[in-house]
Amino acid sequence: ILKEELNEAMAVDIAEAFEELDKKNSIILFRLLSKDLAVDVFSYLSGQQRKDIVDAIHETKLNEIIDELYFDDMIDFLEEMPANVVKKILVNATDEERKLINQFLNYPENSAGSLMTIEYVDLKKEMTVKEALEHIKKTGVDKETIYTCYVLNEKRKLEGIVSLRKLVLLEDNLLVEEIMNEDYISCTTLDDQEEVTLLFKKYDLLTVPVVDKEARLVGIITIDDIVDVIDQENTEDFQKMAAMEPNDEEYLYSNVFSLARRRIVWLALLMVTATLTEMIIGRFESTLAAITVLAASIPMLMDTAGNAGAQSSTLIIRGIALGEVELTDYIKVFWKEFRVSSIVGIALASINLIRMLLLGSEASVAFTVSITLLITIMMAKVVGGTLPIVAKKLRLDPAIMAGPLITTIVDVMALLVYFNIAGVLIL
Amino acid sequence: ILKEELNEAMAVDIAEAFEELDKKNSIILFRLLSKDLAVDVFSYLSGQQRKDIVDAIHETKLNEIIDELYFDDMIDFLEEMPANVVKKILVNATDEERKLINQFLNYPENSAGSLMTIEYVDLKKEMTVKEALEHIKKTGVDKETIYTCYVLNEKRKLEGIVSLRKLVLLEDNLLVEEIMNEDYISCTTLDDQEEVTLLFKKYDLLTVPVVDKEARLVGIITIDDIVDVIDQENTEDFQKMAAMEPNDEEYLYSNVFSLARRRIVWLALLMVTATLTEMIIGRFESTLAAITVLAASIPMLMDTAGNAGAQSSTLIIRGIALGEVELTDYIKVFWKEFRVSSIVGIALASINLIRMLLLGSEASVAFTVSITLLITIMMAKVVGGTLPIVAKKLRLDPAIMAGPLITTIVDVMALLVYFNIAGVLIL
Ligand SMILES: [Mg+2]
Ligand SMILES: [Mg+2]
Ligand SMILES: [Mg+2]
Ligand SMILES: [Mg+2]
Ligand SMILES: [Mg+2]
Ligand SMILES: [Mg+2]
Ligand SMILES: [Mg+2]
Ligand SMILES: [Mg+2]
Ligand SMILES: [Mg+2]
Ligand SMILES: [Mg+2]
Ligand SMILES: [Mg+2]
Ligand SMILES: [Mg+2]
Ligand SMILES: [Mg+2]
Repeated sequence: ILKEELNEAMAVDIAEAFEELDKKNSIILFRLLSKDLAVDVFSYLSGQQRKDIVDAIHETKLNEIIDELYFDDMIDFLEEMPANVVKKILVNATDEERKLINQFLNYPENSAGSLMTIEYVDLKKEMTVKEALEHIKKTGVDKETIYTCYVLNEKRKLEGIVSLRKLVLLEDNLLVEEIMNEDYISCTTLDDQEEVTLLFKKYDLLTVPVVDKEARLVGIITIDDIVDVIDQENTEDFQKMAAMEPNDEEYLYSNVFSLARRRIVWLALLMVTATLTEMIIGRFESTLAAITVLAASIPMLMDTAGNAGAQSSTLIIRGIALGEVELTDYIKVFWKEFRVSSIVGIALASINLIRMLLLGSEASVAFTVSITLLITIMMAKVVGGTLPIVAKKLRLDPAIMAGPLITTIVDVMALLVYFNIAGVLIL
Repeated sequence: ILKEELNEAMAVDIAEAFEELDKKNSIILFRLLSKDLAVDVFSYLSGQQRKDIVDAIHETKLNEIIDELYFDDMIDFLEEMPANVVKKILVNATDEERKLINQFLNYPENSAGSLMTIEYVDLKKEMTVKEALEHIKKTGVDKETIYTCYVLNEKRKLEGIVSLRKLVLLEDNLLVEEIMNEDYISCTTLDDQEEVTLLFKKYDLLTVPVVDKEARLVGIITIDDIVDVIDQENTEDFQKMAAMEPNDEEYLYSNVFSLARRRIVWLALLMVTATLTEMIIGRFESTLAAITVLAASIPMLMDTAGNAGAQSSTLIIRGIALGEVELTDYIKVFWKEFRVSSIVGIALASINLIRMLLLGSEASVAFTVSITLLITIMMAKVVGGTLPIVAKKLRLDPAIMAGPLITTIVDVMALLVYFNIAGVLIL
């Protein structure tokens, strides 16, 4: 009757083994599993594997499995199934279930609503600790967690939260009302999942209740799903920062064309933007023709400025994602990057000056390159550090203001500075 | 007697309020807190804030607070205090405590040992469920968690794990031995914290036991600290991928000189490596002098190739970090990047060819640039996709094989390809 942790861990390992099996053998293996184990394994399989199994097993068995899935996993499953499968399943559901399923299917992706499950323990504030424990013993088997219990009134308004810790440690005759926490942390169905992860991190939560506008309890979110969201949000940031359309498919299972498509758009956009650099070099063609040696340092100047800008933007994007840097810190960031970039710029310009003079460059060229380096590093870092905050202010994702875009912006500035200084120092 | 969740959440908020206060007012506020709340707030303060408080409060009060901290938080606190404070605290500890503190202080940073705490519930397998619950009621108040209990023999060997869920839901007269899970997931003190986070993610754990070589229980790791480690490891990857020495200090509280130092080393290294590009351009100076228009496309070529390589390396670095890409996938990644990069390369080369011809470039130049684009994008993506795996194989952190380093490598290849194709097509 009780889902065993033993099974949970075994289920994960069995699901992993499915990755090595072909379709036919997975179905054979799946049929061999006991029902409880089948449910657990099913919840850990990938979308494609689930589809294969749905096609192969009998409708009655499928309905049994779906009945046993936690509600959040069931909704995730329905979201990835073709319409005819969903229809069949909805036909087998009661009116009330159908209404609830449709409500949950409608929560936007990445909202708190899309992470909720409904298998929680509800208590009444008039219960004693002893009665609460008996109630848990009677209803707890099917709950996703019993470690946090929710105190509801007759209108399902959430009046407080009690941890199982308190119920087990405190006296049997105390009232739930006396021990419940009324100043609980909660979120609403439409909150962004990123905001919800920040709540879990800040308050070290295991679960969070999701309430509607009337403070009625709609569902709960558990830490295991939040850990997955943290991974997902970080993957999104890594991908955006490398100028890709984000997607959380596993790389090895991704289609070649979809991988290519997600990369081309940004690359093409940045490539076309880089046309500006062509125009600038074209405009200064006479300078370049007169001093061809200037061309030699262009790649080094651009790479260094791009790298310097990427460092700053990465730190700020990460700081914003962790909630450490806010919009109001704009001036602080500007000033800090100004100071840091002076130090970094002077250091690198000096190293470069010495390097070029040692390698036998003309002093005027060595100075032109080094001064350009100093100025572009400073511009790159100030721009790189502040643009993510500007993006946030404009309600864009700060993660797009990363290396690739900063590099392109900085390239243009660097060339202008370079040729103008060359004009003064050399010509 | 019981630490309340109410206090926990309040403690977080009060600790946050400390950030806005100056030293003097923080100390005044801290003195006003009740002892339990003071302990909780203290565990959420930053290193500097703790130092200020340690300097200002009486030794007796400090010892009271330290006694109440969970062991892992206490060790973290000792690690950041100056030697004389640590000494004073060790003097007040019993022999046994001192031995334990020293043992824990010696676990390497980023090891499972450095994350452990010792406040867990231990049970005996001969206990009945009822006896186990009574034991928990008696000893549970000071435990960091009571939701997972550890069954130990007389030599403290870990024989099994029982969740409080089972103890509450199952019959009172069952024996712990009958319901405990003997195939538990565990780790050892020297395991890397990154490996431990993968266990939590894979098996959806709330806690994991840490055992020594003889399978004796040394401590437990809880999910709230693992969530912090996930953030920390991701920050590390973001920073390494942007060519910085990693550090998990908050940006706004970091010293300008330490920020500069962590950025200069890699920038200088990459800048000096970029000297190769200068040498190549120098070698082809006559080509460039003959066709100065070639210089115009250099920045665009290098940016695009660099961006293309960064996309691939980012996907693979992330895949390795999430345990999705393994060393043995080398050939798969190579082949996938080869195909993806052909598509991306052909698409971008075509866009560029059309663009250049429309803008009135000579056909020979437009073809030279476009063919170079195709070849360099393919090289960049194959190199970018496979180098992180090579790094992993060499036991280097894959995260260093990201945008900045890939860009520098790819720049050199791109220039060689460019001038050689120009030599064939134009001269
Ligand atoms: Mg969902
Ligand atoms: Mg936390
Ligand atoms: Mg779930
Ligand atoms: Mg889950
Ligand atoms: Mg997001
Ligand atoms: Mg985001
Ligand atoms: Mg520690
Ligand atoms: Mg998981
Ligand atoms: Mg802890
Ligand atoms: Mg903690
Ligand atoms: Mg690490
Ligand atoms: Mg790492
Ligand atoms: Mg570049």
